[in-house]
Amino acid sequence: MNKVSDIKSDANADLYPTRLATGEVWRDRVDPVIWGDKTPTDHLSRDDLDRYERDGYLVKHDLFADDEVSALLDAAQDLRNSAPERLGPNAIREPGSGDLRTLFQLETHHDLFDRLSRSERVAGIARRILNDEVYLHQSRLNYKPGFTGKEFYWHSDFETWHAEDGLPRMRALSASVLLTDNDALNGPLMLMPGSQMHYVGCQGETPENNHKTSLKKQEIGTPSPEALDWMAKKFGIDYAAGKAGTVIFFDCNTIHGSNGNITPFPRSNAFFVFNALSNQPRDPFAADDPRPEYLGTRSEIAALRIEDAPLT
Amino acid sequence: MNKVSDIKSDANADLYPTRLATGEVWRDRVDPVIWGDKTPTDHLSRDDLDRYERDGYLVKHDLFADDEVSALLDAAQDLRNSAPERLGPNAIREPGSGDLRTLFQLETHHDLFDRLSRSERVAGIARRILNDEVYLHQSRLNYKPGFTGKEFYWHSDFETWHAEDGLPRMRALSASVLLTDNDALNGPLMLMPGSQMHYVGCQGETPENNHKTSLKKQEIGTPSPEALDWMAKKFGIDYAAGKAGTVIFFDCNTIHGSNGNITPFPRSNAFFVFNALSNQPRDPFAADDPRPEYLGTRSEIAALRIEDAPLT
Repeated sequence: MNKVSDIKSDANADLYPTRLATGEVWRDRVDPVIWGDKTPTDHLSRDDLDRYERDGYLVKHDLFADDEVSALLDAAQDLRNSAPERLGPNAIREPGSGDLRTLFQLETHHDLFDRLSRSERVAGIARRILNDEVYLHQSRLNYKPGFTGKEFYWHSDFETWHAEDGLPRMRALSASVLLTDNDALNGPLMLMPGSQMHYVGCQGETPENNHKTSLKKQEIGTPSPEALDWMAKKFGIDYAAGKAGTVIFFDCNTIHGSNGNITPFPRSNAFFVFNALSNQPRDPFAADDPRPEYLGTRSEIAALRIEDAPLT
Repeated sequence: MNKVSDIKSDANADLYPTRLATGEVWRDRVDPVIWGDKTPTDHLSRDDLDRYERDGYLVKHDLFADDEVSALLDAAQDLRNSAPERLGPNAIREPGSGDLRTLFQLETHHDLFDRLSRSERVAGIARRILNDEVYLHQSRLNYKPGFTGKEFYWHSDFETWHAEDGLPRMRALSASVLLTDNDALNGPLMLMPGSQMHYVGCQGETPENNHKTSLKKQEIGTPSPEALDWMAKKFGIDYAAGKAGTVIFFDCNTIHGSNGNITPFPRSNAFFVFNALSNQPRDPFAADDPRPEYLGTRSEIAALRIEDAPLT
């Protein structure tokens, strides 16, 4: 095996092979988690930066004022009440009721979510952690009803973004802005703290149009039960909870998932994936064709115009 | 509507109508939760009795010593390793692997579980709460694997025991002895504290052989989404967690359920339903035929011989 220094010197090398016909491969992460130094900022203390680096995620409870949270909830409700013609093909709806389940490219649908995505308190934190200008690789509004919320199985986002979208390096993160209260019992985001340092190159080649089924139930690109068992015992399992307005930032390689939800309490969040401008997508590393634009931006990539302004 | 005093005077009255063609009916509980007085015992403090009466359940963390818990875990493992011929038709197995999933009439399969079911610390507590001699209406060993543990939807046990087994009064309870550690994330028992006081007579008549499907997914005899939403907001949702050896006692009418479990950590418990000897089953109140004996004892009902002895 090549030394890391050799691999890094080849800009086209695949540092994170996956979707392997020959079987699962475990390797250490090559990239840093915090890019650049750890000088604190207005919204990221030194302790925040240390935690994020150690755990691969950070839960911020007090980024937004009550009136900002109310405005976000109203905006989300507006979108759910919108006529289908207004939202177009970016909206995924419930088969029976036609209720809105997921709305992609969220920032294009509502001014307030556009400003949220470019807020110093969301995009600014991503820029600081990634130490680069950032753009939105993906964004969406999620709405999961109570009683019947389905589980989402363990995975690393990076594995898919690398295999199917062509992101070369682990220099991306997600920010989930909670729009409902989330506790241990209504299917919160579960994460394995420290798992961001461990990369699982997965077994199994990517089928054509894999995203059409993987959004419902991911079966390709997930670690084996043996790998998950080993990681759960080594790293443990934590969950991220908080009131509406809480923001969960998590590294692109942190293993996460969520249980189903039989409680009557729905879950909703606004979800933004920030990628470093220097980490733009290439050809997919392990798929014939890239996923569509609404799942992974490829055209017109430009640094977000980050603003430090109230969201009201 | 008749007054409670009138209803109580008719020993054959159906105090808790359910499986109604005409729609769901909500009514208050007629029966007490703690039968008799609240004098403390060795294993039930006054605070325990108050909590059980108020919440409809009680979690006891320290009933068994470490060596007793080890012996119970060994016994459960023995049963899982037993040849299928030895366990017979009481064993429910995984379709693919043939692994043991549920073993009914547990006390007939292993001396230690027989003694557990008759222990002062389990059956004795049930006898105290129900203020009567008790017998086993049902018992089982449950084993749910990690990764794929399915959810169990909200229900009142009494609703089924009344409708399909013919138990006339709310004078029964369950004791779940945890055989694995259970926390908020691996699909613990969730309960609505106080819901034992609120009876939901459910809509929908009982299909023939309902138990053949209801054990997998209960659809008849569950409260409506509106009832569950109302109860969840009124009572809240708690969960019962603890290390192996913890015992959860819960009233027959406490609304409970559990989420699925994608964690690698399996769940296992020994489960005993105690009914008051004076509350013996009649003809089912809302089904053509009673469920089979392994789901609800009907023959050879006799008071348990409760013993206060170590389980090693």
